[in-house]
Amino acid sequence: MTSSLPTDKMANAIRALAMDAVQKANSGHPGMPMGMAEIAVALWSKHYRHNPANPHWNNRDRFVISNGHGSMLHYALLHLTGYDLSMDEIKNFRQMHSKTPGHPEVHITPGIETTTGPLGQGITNAVGMALAEALLASEFNKPGFDIVGHHTYVFLGDGCLMEGISHEACSLAGALRLNKIIALYDDNGISIDGKVEGWFIDDTPKRFEAYHWNVIRDVDGHDVAAVDAAIAQAKLSDKPTLICCKTVIGKGAPNMQGSDKVHGAALGDKEIAATRDHIGWAHVPFEVPADVYAAWDAKGRGAELEQEWTTLFNAYSERYPQEAGEFLRRMKGELPGKLNEVIDAYIAACVEKKETIATRKASQNAIQALAPALPEFLGGSADLTGSNLTNWKESVAVRAGVPGNHINYGVREFGMAAMMNGIALHGGFIPFGGTFLTFSDYSRNALRMAALMKIRSIFVFTHDSIGLGEDGPTHQSVEHVSSLRLIPGLDNWRPCDTVESAVAWKHAVARRHGPTTLIFSRQNLPFMERSAEQIQHINRGGYVLRDAPGAKAVIIATGSEVELAVKAADELGKQGTPVRVVSMPCTDLFDRQDAAYKASVLPKGLPRVAVEAGVTDFWYKYVGLDGAVVGIDTFGESAPAGVLFKHFGFTTENVVAKVKSVLG
Amino acid sequence: MTSSLPTDKMANAIRALAMDAVQKANSGHPGMPMGMAEIAVALWSKHYRHNPANPHWNNRDRFVISNGHGSMLHYALLHLTGYDLSMDEIKNFRQMHSKTPGHPEVHITPGIETTTGPLGQGITNAVGMALAEALLASEFNKPGFDIVGHHTYVFLGDGCLMEGISHEACSLAGALRLNKIIALYDDNGISIDGKVEGWFIDDTPKRFEAYHWNVIRDVDGHDVAAVDAAIAQAKLSDKPTLICCKTVIGKGAPNMQGSDKVHGAALGDKEIAATRDHIGWAHVPFEVPADVYAAWDAKGRGAELEQEWTTLFNAYSERYPQEAGEFLRRMKGELPGKLNEVIDAYIAACVEKKETIATRKASQNAIQALAPALPEFLGGSADLTGSNLTNWKESVAVRAGVPGNHINYGVREFGMAAMMNGIALHGGFIPFGGTFLTFSDYSRNALRMAALMKIRSIFVFTHDSIGLGEDGPTHQSVEHVSSLRLIPGLDNWRPCDTVESAVAWKHAVARRHGPTTLIFSRQNLPFMERSAEQIQHINRGGYVLRDAPGAKAVIIATGSEVELAVKAADELGKQGTPVRVVSMPCTDLFDRQDAAYKASVLPKGLPRVAVEAGVTDFWYKYVGLDGAVVGIDTFGESAPAGVLFKHFGFTTENVVAKVKSVLG
Repeated sequence: MTSSLPTDKMANAIRALAMDAVQKANSGHPGMPMGMAEIAVALWSKHYRHNPANPHWNNRDRFVISNGHGSMLHYALLHLTGYDLSMDEIKNFRQMHSKTPGHPEVHITPGIETTTGPLGQGITNAVGMALAEALLASEFNKPGFDIVGHHTYVFLGDGCLMEGISHEACSLAGALRLNKIIALYDDNGISIDGKVEGWFIDDTPKRFEAYHWNVIRDVDGHDVAAVDAAIAQAKLSDKPTLICCKTVIGKGAPNMQGSDKVHGAALGDKEIAATRDHIGWAHVPFEVPADVYAAWDAKGRGAELEQEWTTLFNAYSERYPQEAGEFLRRMKGELPGKLNEVIDAYIAACVEKKETIATRKASQNAIQALAPALPEFLGGSADLTGSNLTNWKESVAVRAGVPGNHINYGVREFGMAAMMNGIALHGGFIPFGGTFLTFSDYSRNALRMAALMKIRSIFVFTHDSIGLGEDGPTHQSVEHVSSLRLIPGLDNWRPCDTVESAVAWKHAVARRHGPTTLIFSRQNLPFMERSAEQIQHINRGGYVLRDAPGAKAVIIATGSEVELAVKAADELGKQGTPVRVVSMPCTDLFDRQDAAYKASVLPKGLPRVAVEAGVTDFWYKYVGLDGAVVGIDTFGESAPAGVLFKHFGFTTENVVAKVKSVLG
Repeated sequence: MTSSLPTDKMANAIRALAMDAVQKANSGHPGMPMGMAEIAVALWSKHYRHNPANPHWNNRDRFVISNGHGSMLHYALLHLTGYDLSMDEIKNFRQMHSKTPGHPEVHITPGIETTTGPLGQGITNAVGMALAEALLASEFNKPGFDIVGHHTYVFLGDGCLMEGISHEACSLAGALRLNKIIALYDDNGISIDGKVEGWFIDDTPKRFEAYHWNVIRDVDGHDVAAVDAAIAQAKLSDKPTLICCKTVIGKGAPNMQGSDKVHGAALGDKEIAATRDHIGWAHVPFEVPADVYAAWDAKGRGAELEQEWTTLFNAYSERYPQEAGEFLRRMKGELPGKLNEVIDAYIAACVEKKETIATRKASQNAIQALAPALPEFLGGSADLTGSNLTNWKESVAVRAGVPGNHINYGVREFGMAAMMNGIALHGGFIPFGGTFLTFSDYSRNALRMAALMKIRSIFVFTHDSIGLGEDGPTHQSVEHVSSLRLIPGLDNWRPCDTVESAVAWKHAVARRHGPTTLIFSRQNLPFMERSAEQIQHINRGGYVLRDAPGAKAVIIATGSEVELAVKAADELGKQGTPVRVVSMPCTDLFDRQDAAYKASVLPKGLPRVAVEAGVTDFWYKYVGLDGAVVGIDTFGESAPAGVLFKHFGFTTENVVAKVKSVLG
């Protein structure tokens, strides 16, 4: 695929659109698009396999701008190559409800594969995508039928490379030898604070060689042919590739290029006029001449590429009809038809067995029950497999060149979470990964990104409170459950026994357009008896677990504190004060129920006490100013769990006293 | 300093104490102490300059176990060398209120320099300590008087090296050429999931060379002389040093060493007996023979070392009395006597000036006012200096070999926060560092650690809401202010104008035993008129900003929404409904006020509406079930700020309507 038009015009079209759109919005980042324009020409016109008419073509190459502030580069490319992104959208850059938000957002703009901006996560998403591709290829491809086989291309800058998560992701990509990932480094020596040489002098090529990457050094990022050749070479490698492109930030702006001034603000009319002169771009803002459009147009070539694949896939479908159907189902993100049956049978078995086990073990049992019916399950742990219990009997550890369905992510919590997001975005898998709940802190922004992107990443967090005991306050969550509940769009389950744990997994798997955290105990929790109706009501996030005729108060509890709530209610009942117990494993889901159901569980006027081994602030939304919360508003201590629960007031006596106090 | 006793007995004393204490607690991590025992012998008996009788000696070497699960190694060392840590404390390992918690905790155990356990943060704290040492040395040392001059030693393992934060910290340590940091890598090839070769194959020496570290490869970690020689060599380098020690995890346990089984659980009586045989340790648990104690005893040598320094410092004090006094003041963490005067004068000037500026600018003005009176101020930003406005007119950027008082941390939010913690722990400085509020997520666990450690790190977070506008939801905080409030011990300020911003800085600086977040707007906020009493009441975290006789309701607001609350109250007043406005810049501080004051601000029975451009859940603790919250429970959007505030209901009309709704 070669262009009859000089590539400099193609690059300058990007420059013009970027600087003009930023100027019109009076907000945005012209420096990166102007600096990476030739790299984009090389990749998009010579290598990138995509079809503008169908951004969801299963076997398209993936393209991620990890330096997401350069969004206008991507929008320009999508517009110029023929995606459904009009010039009006470009003119509406960064305006309300446009398809061209400040940073790229998946599901808003056709062709955007992931939401980026928080630095380092784009490259990590991309590593996840490349891993998904490799695993899917190993599972579905047949001799002569490489129905899965595409590259994942990433643009990234100094910022991404300074972020710690880039270390986690790239180290693991090297260990897993994910050779389909090709990253293009915008080595312009500038970050927001100025020339990076004062704070960032890494020998980046050497660093990536230490990760066992294929590193292509010293490429002139403004030489399309050089970048083209580097990409061609990268495709031949059996390792992931980093192409180090020397560039000038804001290239083309004669008085500002090469400095931080061009990074994150409009150039101004004067410099824009000077740039037009300097690069020989005589067109008014938002005008692209027909020959430039023609040179960029990827619609024809894209249709051909997809058609080639469709022909291959059709032949595959004839030869391997079951696999083909399964492949399509999985890429659509649909669950197997019989899955609900499997889950419901498993829930019934839990009810039958009445086991007293840790909910992390209950979680593993649920995974064990689901996995045979759910081949898209892709588990993992950040080096706590035996503690998180994210593996199962038949699970196979993924290694370089060895497919499997459980990933040893290493001690890389943030990397794991953002890779899971990439896996979910790629399609074909439902990723889940575990660490201790306290270390959800390390991955927190990736959980947020999963929620913002509305994707099915399932975050398993075990050792969920002071109940983990002797490891002490560095490992004991107190604020985490509540603070996860504050992230919009994230569903958070803290189940109290085997049955609630199974229902939590059911919801997490079924929640196609949103992430879930599953929060489990280290310690054993007793089985709770429930009616069939109560079991149904778990699906509402909160429900009456123990009612008492003429109840004078309600105790609301989650997870390990449900047992305590029941004991306190029993004691109060004996003392002549009937009290209802509400189990609230998922407040997010409960909040989405209709008002009538909510009022039936928490009747207006009935005093309420919440019990959770965590901070109390959150619970006032349910108990109000006249209620009470039994919680812990300090850090924990290092001691056996039983000692700690007593020390911090998680005793029947204390809960009973709190209920009495709200009864006045 | 050489020992007459074979070093293997010294090492085996560590092994025995570690395995026996873990066995007694039936909880803990014997593998690291047993594997790093000889490294500890080499460092502590040949190099580490400390005085067991005075763990706070200003010029002691710092020692950090970044792989904090190996706490028993450190406790064994402290006990054996003569710190105030009795054998009873060792026997009480991991028990309630012992001085030997599961992971090392600063301020609990004499000789522990920082709290570790969350991997990667210890090495990062250590980089902060080494930076503090270098800056303090450049500031206070005089020819012939190196009153500051010590090393920072770190033990770390594979886990720390997999964590992304190790990249951030070590990359910056290389760029700043912090040659007093010497890290000893426990290269045992094992992490919790097993042999790391499946997920961690970094060429770590090469990686650290890429950071411009001095790397000493292939040291036998069980050869005391080899480790000793490596440390001696490290001390000569003009770069930070990584000593790569090949070790066997759990060395000495004949049937379990070298495997993940020995990492995190008691060995069991049988293996412990076998270990005693294998290493020739004939003593019963918790018995250390006198000759071993004698060999380890560092009290005499420690007293000498400190005395040498004291002699030097006394001479320095005579020659440079002012500097000596200032050095001691700063190391104690005491503020200059005249500081309150300076701050109060600045607050008065703000009252006078009535400026309408962004609170991030108000923050910079406060920094500018404080800095001349507060030489311990050490600012910085994670590559957003011009946005966070953490620098000031006279601030000087720190560079390799060039002292200063403002650090360009690079795009390394987590590294910055954990380095700040190390700087605060070292003493001599009050560190503050900025990033966008949303990226507090990246550093979250370091904020938690600052709170757990009760240290004075000041985290500046600007661009605090949808008010940042066009950068969109990836950059717009909605859950962050509330979720920071959930971290125990962290004070969080979100001021509404120049005056509250100045008071917030005053509290942050004065809060010697706890961290503070200072949360500022990108956009301009109007000056609020206040009486002298109201200005005093800002010091209570929440106060009546606008009262109305016969008020029918209270509007509580923070930061950028205070203006809106006032406008709504004005409108309601015009409509005949008097309404009080409470400004609540620091809920944490307000919560610590006495009940009478709190009731005077929020009288019982008066309906309440909270207004904050963030998630609503948190505010029910103040408004109750019958109150209302004007907030935002979804992610933001990419558009100009004014458009967004309107879109999300931050309008006078909406607040007025909400107040009317709670009035029924």
